[in-house]
Amino acid sequence: MDNITLNGSTRVYYVVGDPIAQVKSPEGMTAAFQAKGVNGVCVPTHVAPADLAVWMQGVRVTKNVDGLMITVPHKIAFTELCDEISDTARFLNAVNVVKRTADGWYGDMFDGRAQVTALRQNGAVLAGKKAILAGAGGAGSAIAYALVEAGVAELAITDTDAARRDSLITRLQSLNQAKVYAGSSDPSGFEIVVNATPMGMAAGDPLPFDGDKLTSRMFVGDVVTYPDTAWLQKAKAQGCQVSNGLDMFAAVRDLMVVFLLDD
Amino acid sequence: MDNITLNGSTRVYYVVGDPIAQVKSPEGMTAAFQAKGVNGVCVPTHVAPADLAVWMQGVRVTKNVDGLMITVPHKIAFTELCDEISDTARFLNAVNVVKRTADGWYGDMFDGRAQVTALRQNGAVLAGKKAILAGAGGAGSAIAYALVEAGVAELAITDTDAARRDSLITRLQSLNQAKVYAGSSDPSGFEIVVNATPMGMAAGDPLPFDGDKLTSRMFVGDVVTYPDTAWLQKAKAQGCQVSNGLDMFAAVRDLMVVFLLDD
Repeated sequence: MDNITLNGSTRVYYVVGDPIAQVKSPEGMTAAFQAKGVNGVCVPTHVAPADLAVWMQGVRVTKNVDGLMITVPHKIAFTELCDEISDTARFLNAVNVVKRTADGWYGDMFDGRAQVTALRQNGAVLAGKKAILAGAGGAGSAIAYALVEAGVAELAITDTDAARRDSLITRLQSLNQAKVYAGSSDPSGFEIVVNATPMGMAAGDPLPFDGDKLTSRMFVGDVVTYPDTAWLQKAKAQGCQVSNGLDMFAAVRDLMVVFLLDD
Repeated sequence: MDNITLNGSTRVYYVVGDPIAQVKSPEGMTAAFQAKGVNGVCVPTHVAPADLAVWMQGVRVTKNVDGLMITVPHKIAFTELCDEISDTARFLNAVNVVKRTADGWYGDMFDGRAQVTALRQNGAVLAGKKAILAGAGGAGSAIAYALVEAGVAELAITDTDAARRDSLITRLQSLNQAKVYAGSSDPSGFEIVVNATPMGMAAGDPLPFDGDKLTSRMFVGDVVTYPDTAWLQKAKAQGCQVSNGLDMFAAVRDLMVVFLLDD
């Protein structure tokens, strides 16, 4: 990295995970902080699940640490290690960002909101629309919740694990904000079609939905962080507008930076 | 800083102190690591004395932390927080650098050795010589021990606190390596004259020794980290060879880098 400030006054943000070598936030978040004129760095931190609580005690006494980014496998554990968490984080039972506040350590979860942000930045309108989502895991649950919060009228969900799918549907139904139900591989009749599974990464992979049923009236999203997955190539070939996983990834970063730097 | 690597694989070294904003090692050590091709950064860490043990528990479980630099006021506490410390650190009851080894966390103390290194790099010969040192505090004690270890034949020590001076003298005498005794403000007859006090920083300040008694046969050292203190200006005017506090500071850094990167 060029042109970064690192000195005794630098404010520190840890990204904590196990493993840690794969994370991109040391470069990305550090660049984002410093582009805003903030003397801050994001430091990789490798801690095993069994050690996380002890590690967090150390963080709490480190006066120049202002926030944390939480990655696998620690997102659930941090719902307990924060002093307070957002409604989103509580609903999803997962935290991916934590900031120090006057009242302690406050956790939030931006994965779903980032997909919604990416969809909107690429031109999608969500309010009142019918959406279908593949995947009821961590990312899928976060996106499902965010789509409901964003005002979709209906949300259909698919997952190869029917029990996981139905559990998410029941919990989303309890919000009384949208009609939520189980979907199929057929996206016909939906205006928003989002993939929150690893499917459709490379040519020849099975796709999360029947690609031949996609139409140009549909807006298609993806969580896979490649610019042009087989799934999105098919969507574009069918005339759909799309939002890719890199757009979501960039939106996560932007949301985190605003959250961490906002007093 | 330009051209530094900071990513998920970066190895982390904390510099811990209270306060922390004044430290130079985040820039200096990071540059030194990366100049050697090591993907490592030095991260400032602000921890109060009462919290240090809790903080160290967190460090112990952080798998990508390879070492620590210890600054005021934590140097004494780290003699207990390490698993093992060097003979130098034990004698001085102070640690300024710690590395993770296969057997745990090993602490050492390089302040004194750095002054000896700086003196030698500037051309001083120490073995068999008569040395006089002003200051029996933390830096002075470290330098006194290092001068004895370096083989001076005699070491005279001055300090405004006679009890502190005499305690250090007694402990150094117990090493049975050099003749150690109380000195005066007169450097006459000594070949090595070192200032380990804050005296003589600016023009008009009282000097650690009587400057008019300095002769060109003497080699003069300083711990004050300015390139050209009033004390060294006087020494040079008297024809002495000198080694300044910045030379010592650079030597501390070099010794720490070698120590931390050596497996």
